[in-house]
Amino acid sequence: MIATINALLPAWLQEEMTQSGTRFETEEARMRYAIALARRNVDEGTGGPFGAALFEAQGGRLISVGVNLVVTSNCSHAHAEMVAIALAEQALGSYSLADLEAGPYALYTSCEPCVMCLGGILWSGVRRVVSAARDADARRIGFDEGPKPENWAEALRSRGIEVREEFCRDEAVAVLRDYAATGGIIYNGR
Amino acid sequence: MIATINALLPAWLQEEMTQSGTRFETEEARMRYAIALARRNVDEGTGGPFGAALFEAQGGRLISVGVNLVVTSNCSHAHAEMVAIALAEQALGSYSLADLEAGPYALYTSCEPCVMCLGGILWSGVRRVVSAARDADARRIGFDEGPKPENWAEALRSRGIEVREEFCRDEAVAVLRDYAATGGIIYNGR
Repeated sequence: MIATINALLPAWLQEEMTQSGTRFETEEARMRYAIALARRNVDEGTGGPFGAALFEAQGGRLISVGVNLVVTSNCSHAHAEMVAIALAEQALGSYSLADLEAGPYALYTSCEPCVMCLGGILWSGVRRVVSAARDADARRIGFDEGPKPENWAEALRSRGIEVREEFCRDEAVAVLRDYAATGGIIYNGR
Repeated sequence: MIATINALLPAWLQEEMTQSGTRFETEEARMRYAIALARRNVDEGTGGPFGAALFEAQGGRLISVGVNLVVTSNCSHAHAEMVAIALAEQALGSYSLADLEAGPYALYTSCEPCVMCLGGILWSGVRRVVSAARDADARRIGFDEGPKPENWAEALRSRGIEVREEFCRDEAVAVLRDYAATGGIIYNGR
């Protein structure tokens, strides 16, 4: 009998979760950490070239981490953003990050969200999203981002979520490129 | 240390999962089952008024069930469609339902997908989606469906997924209405 939905975290990511509470003062430090998670995921062979991390927007305490775990956890929804959000909600014991005392919360992601993660971000109550690589960068190596609104950032802003795009883009694109160059699995569920 | 992402299933839903393998020959039978799951979720007080079930498109063997478990599992992503897809992938041991021998697979959902679930359906490899209540029906009682493409069904069809809309709509709308009337929690993560 299946009693839970499980997305198993690789050992190294569990280890990263023990860093929760560490302060990352600057946006650069937070984004570099998210991109480092993407890089580590590729190096460890535990999933696709995407990483995310969720912080208290003020003060920068790390709440949770995420990487793409689709293939290794047999879960097509386990994109980096979704993993980081689910782990944050689990850690904070709330289905909404919108109205918690230590909030608002900010999500840093090595690549802008696909259509699923766009919705996932919206329902999570995250208040700020910072992304590095563009949709076009992911598509260039074969990943599909789905039927997103023409301006995904505006779609979030119009709902009260701050968005900053193309932050440290080159560093994130290098991870995508290296993944493709080493023959990493490109899957789109079709 | 958090080793997994868990979305706990209520006992009654675990019991439903033991029905896996049962044949539902007609589209009516499959959709009525998905709507009955939504109804049961409201009656049991285990979540929002949404249900979904995933079947082998040919022959109609039940693979998995899903209901909205956002509040009870502290997971904003635990919409009915996402739960059903995740449980199917877990049961079948694959991150894609697209190329399995017993496929193609069809998802029956008591309400058309929000923007997150639209992407989740796409990445799952499901080949047919049948929905009952409309986006407007969910919005009418206060649920936000997010910035979806103007024609979500076309967006899926253009990617090779069959869509049938407004099937048994009235029965699904009755569940939404009853949920609102009894003061069920309406949340949108904001």
